[in-house]
Amino acid sequence: MDQSNAILARLEATVAARRQADPATSYVARLHAKGLGKIAQKVGEEGVETVIAALSGSEDELVGEAADLLFHLMVLLDARAVPLARVLDELARREGLSGLAEKAARPRD
Amino acid sequence: MDQSNAILARLEATVAARRQADPATSYVARLHAKGLGKIAQKVGEEGVETVIAALSGSEDELVGEAADLLFHLMVLLDARAVPLARVLDELARREGLSGLAEKAARPRD
Amino acid sequence: MDQSNAILARLEATVAARRQADPATSYVARLHAKGLGKIAQKVGEEGVETVIAALSGSEDELVGEAADLLFHLMVLLDARAVPLARVLDELARREGLSGLAEKAARPRD
Amino acid sequence: MDQSNAILARLEATVAARRQADPATSYVARLHAKGLGKIAQKVGEEGVETVIAALSGSEDELVGEAADLLFHLMVLLDARAVPLARVLDELARREGLSGLAEKAARPRD
Repeated sequence: MDQSNAILARLEATVAARRQADPATSYVARLHAKGLGKIAQKVGEEGVETVIAALSGSEDELVGEAADLLFHLMVLLDARAVPLARVLDELARREGLSGLAEKAARPRD
Repeated sequence: MDQSNAILARLEATVAARRQADPATSYVARLHAKGLGKIAQKVGEEGVETVIAALSGSEDELVGEAADLLFHLMVLLDARAVPLARVLDELARREGLSGLAEKAARPRD
Repeated sequence: MDQSNAILARLEATVAARRQADPATSYVARLHAKGLGKIAQKVGEEGVETVIAALSGSEDELVGEAADLLFHLMVLLDARAVPLARVLDELARREGLSGLAEKAARPRD
Repeated sequence: MDQSNAILARLEATVAARRQADPATSYVARLHAKGLGKIAQKVGEEGVETVIAALSGSEDELVGEAADLLFHLMVLLDARAVPLARVLDELARREGLSGLAEKAARPRD
């Protein structure tokens, strides 16, 4: 888990660095050159691919699509200048809810 | 960042515990009772909502949608018995790519 | 098929009329009151639900989700003041492509 | 509108014919060769692209994405052997609802 931590911290720093790299050598820089709409599109598409892998793919395929989804979410947060820590803090705030509070706080959808 | 680590580890454990809770008191248990299709649907929908928040929402809205997306992705991975560590390892494997290798390994889309 | 035509023409007119109705009695008016982001969100979500119904749902479920998707697409086009005829004309323009032209015109994705 | 009718009828017939064509010359046949998951993925992705075009694209971009979405929805329905008429009949059944009945029948979401 310390390793997982290192992975996310490194990924966030790496994405921020690549944003300013040469689009000829960096996929992240190419996405940025295409604009926020294109980056958001990738997040939506990877969400769809994760859905499909979850329903009809192998474990490896699901792992690959979930990794793609997380990667592009990091690129999107970076593009909007939102630190991952803000998202994790929000998760922690909600996670602190007890089972009963969870029931009250979430819509039944 | 140690805190972020703790958040993700706690979230993964919490989701696994809630899966076996009473659907009357746990949102996660209710999702599980509805099946994998419903869980996958939530991931896809939160992907769409993240797209919209990124393009036309405030920073708070983007934080909230990204947290929702991560939360439901954790529920989906748990439902398919895929440890988050496998996804992070896959990200680390890819992140290790140099800028040039990144260029070669990723499609130009 | 003449009937199908009548259905789409009626749907387009009905959606346009409901847009100006009282949100208390019209779902379309309520969507409009929430704004373009909410209408677009529904199209994205129904796209996801159509994906899931196609992969793991019954024929009735797929029919229901495809109807929901078409309905919300009509609401979205109306909200952007785009006549359905423009979309159908674009389809006709592409459909006119021969098999070989189709090959050349479409990306291999 | 008679023209719109002709367009959808021709599109449905064309998609069914192309399904059995040579993947080397037909995009529809190539999608079929990749399986239902790939076809469903395209519907989900075009849904996302329609969302983005609606929020930040020109009218031409929205027309193009909506046409892509309808096209791939036709390919998906054909792949599941669902006639478009069934979807349109379902729309007609719902559209017949009065404003008040509409209110009662639809969730407030």
